[in-house]
Amino acid sequence: MRLTLLTDFGTVDGYVAAMKAVIAGIAPGIIIDDASHAIPPGDVRSGAWALGAYWRQYPRGTVHVVVVDPGVGSGRRALALECDGRFLVGPDNGVLAPAITTAEAWRAVSIENDSYVGDIVSATFHGRDVFAPAAAYLARGVTLEELGPSVSDPVLPQTPEPSIRDGVWYGAIIHVDRFGNLVTNLPATAVAEGTTVSIGSRHVQMVRTYADVGEGEVLALVGSRGLVELSVRNGNAATLLGVGRGDIVTVPRGPRP
Amino acid sequence: MRLTLLTDFGTVDGYVAAMKAVIAGIAPGIIIDDASHAIPPGDVRSGAWALGAYWRQYPRGTVHVVVVDPGVGSGRRALALECDGRFLVGPDNGVLAPAITTAEAWRAVSIENDSYVGDIVSATFHGRDVFAPAAAYLARGVTLEELGPSVSDPVLPQTPEPSIRDGVWYGAIIHVDRFGNLVTNLPATAVAEGTTVSIGSRHVQMVRTYADVGEGEVLALVGSRGLVELSVRNGNAATLLGVGRGDIVTVPRGPRP
Amino acid sequence: MRLTLLTDFGTVDGYVAAMKAVIAGIAPGIIIDDASHAIPPGDVRSGAWALGAYWRQYPRGTVHVVVVDPGVGSGRRALALECDGRFLVGPDNGVLAPAITTAEAWRAVSIENDSYVGDIVSATFHGRDVFAPAAAYLARGVTLEELGPSVSDPVLPQTPEPSIRDGVWYGAIIHVDRFGNLVTNLPATAVAEGTTVSIGSRHVQMVRTYADVGEGEVLALVGSRGLVELSVRNGNAATLLGVGRGDIVTVPRGPRP
Repeated sequence: MRLTLLTDFGTVDGYVAAMKAVIAGIAPGIIIDDASHAIPPGDVRSGAWALGAYWRQYPRGTVHVVVVDPGVGSGRRALALECDGRFLVGPDNGVLAPAITTAEAWRAVSIENDSYVGDIVSATFHGRDVFAPAAAYLARGVTLEELGPSVSDPVLPQTPEPSIRDGVWYGAIIHVDRFGNLVTNLPATAVAEGTTVSIGSRHVQMVRTYADVGEGEVLALVGSRGLVELSVRNGNAATLLGVGRGDIVTVPRGPRP
Repeated sequence: MRLTLLTDFGTVDGYVAAMKAVIAGIAPGIIIDDASHAIPPGDVRSGAWALGAYWRQYPRGTVHVVVVDPGVGSGRRALALECDGRFLVGPDNGVLAPAITTAEAWRAVSIENDSYVGDIVSATFHGRDVFAPAAAYLARGVTLEELGPSVSDPVLPQTPEPSIRDGVWYGAIIHVDRFGNLVTNLPATAVAEGTTVSIGSRHVQMVRTYADVGEGEVLALVGSRGLVELSVRNGNAATLLGVGRGDIVTVPRGPRP
Repeated sequence: MRLTLLTDFGTVDGYVAAMKAVIAGIAPGIIIDDASHAIPPGDVRSGAWALGAYWRQYPRGTVHVVVVDPGVGSGRRALALECDGRFLVGPDNGVLAPAITTAEAWRAVSIENDSYVGDIVSATFHGRDVFAPAAAYLARGVTLEELGPSVSDPVLPQTPEPSIRDGVWYGAIIHVDRFGNLVTNLPATAVAEGTTVSIGSRHVQMVRTYADVGEGEVLALVGSRGLVELSVRNGNAATLLGVGRGDIVTVPRGPRP
């Protein structure tokens, strides 16, 4: 049995350890991999971005627990999903969307069966009281259907899609990573080597890899998620360019003259 | 075999990995769950607070290693405990107090048997040289008594208790969490919905959950540890109110007029 | 099977979880210990320092994955090593040097066999596409030789060695840890209790342990790596002394008058 944890809890308050404790109590011997506990508080988009990096790379049968839950204690549903053989649990606020929108097949339920949540459910910590136990029971072989009624309309946030107008691709920065790399929503197919990517008044050359430019120079390439990224070789593009999530990038079709 | 680690070491210097290495060498196949390594350096109270969140939620037989140890190299004892079937090791400075004071049954020893610590014990890193090996041997089935002589007087820090005077509860903020939630030492029984909790000149309404107030509004509720907390819905109460650990809160008995 | 991960990736972007996913897919049931993901971006020396703390403490057969890789996508080789029965994988940039230089026996290969890396190798994320799969196959019993051709000249950075001139030891601070302790390259044999260690115009007494001086006082001792360290008892020596990596320390032979 293998389970992953992604939260915005940090670790210092013991919240994550309390979740691990509940999981280990229900499913002894389970291996728990920390994905991250450093998602900025309440930042559902960042949580979803991180989840997209690993949920399907894990083998079938893995249970992914995702708790970025600014609506805890409100009426939002608690979801359990099966997506291409992997299980996911988390709040119904869009944080699980990357799995739902990219899976070949998925089904979802609302976690409502009292037998598979904690004896006492606090108003503030469903990570420990709802998601951890439900996930541990899934790892033990409890079926999705035993957890609660089917859900056909999970929350799927509008994500900004790139567009083409007059032969120009319009995209946006959708993620800034730890290194200051600027990940856009432009697919690899929007660009070719030699193309330039424009941000503000700056035109950046599309290359294959960081080493194709000098230290400290700005470049664009296709990153590890298959999307166009703007970077600075061994530097921080977000800082150097002074841009961030939501800012617009454009690519004229074909190489720029 | 399952073991948890709580330290103030951070991870960047390799200290935590060195502890894991020693543990894995003595108890191959053991699963090590990180609780946290982000306790502020030397902050015994923060370490104790975190431990209180998970030590008993873990199943019997779990070994909890807790190293927040500003007195390393001094004469302070190195403790091993059994509390309600869970094992704990750590310095005798109060960081283990949450287990001792809430367990139905406990016993303690001072780790002094050279057979169960490292060949060389450094003056500065008992996490690696004393606590890690002792914990790994406990996980393998070595008994508490084999580790050293019995201890009947572990350090138990004075913790601030709430009091009642003239029908008013007086409590204090005992923890500020990552989200800026202000955890007080007031038990759930001190309050009722509709009560107000006062901090400085501000009177805050007691509600059931965050969603009972608007975004950015201050509220009080019973949190996941069963204590009264002051929060801001999707905001940071510590920052907004400018208060922190040690500050006083009061609750008049019964609803305020 | 047991494997450790050391990176400069942070956790928030999902990069580390993607590595874990690949590893778990190839080697189900493997236990993955996080060493650290907080190495400063691209700081090969810090990564090497951390690795030195734990690589050999782990039992034989452990696989250590180390990805601090500012040259990803350039021509730098991807290495797999066996050092005293432990396996290591990482970029050929010196980050693995602590294992090579301290092992009694080592051999190295360049990871080039397509069968043991990902189907698609991105230009930016060899942690996921090269090092994780190669490491997981090593854990499963694939031999070093199956991964690629032998390497006899791994990159081994010049490390500053202490010297003796006119009866005075000259050393340097080589690491500043989370607590502000200043680790020098002076071996324990350079000093004796009662000696003073000089930094700038300050002369610091050599003691056995922190508790030998008062709170807030500066001291020198032999730390957990067997090297001379400058510390402040329950304080931060780096901040108090205003010094850092590369700064010079001296020790006159024998006790100072």
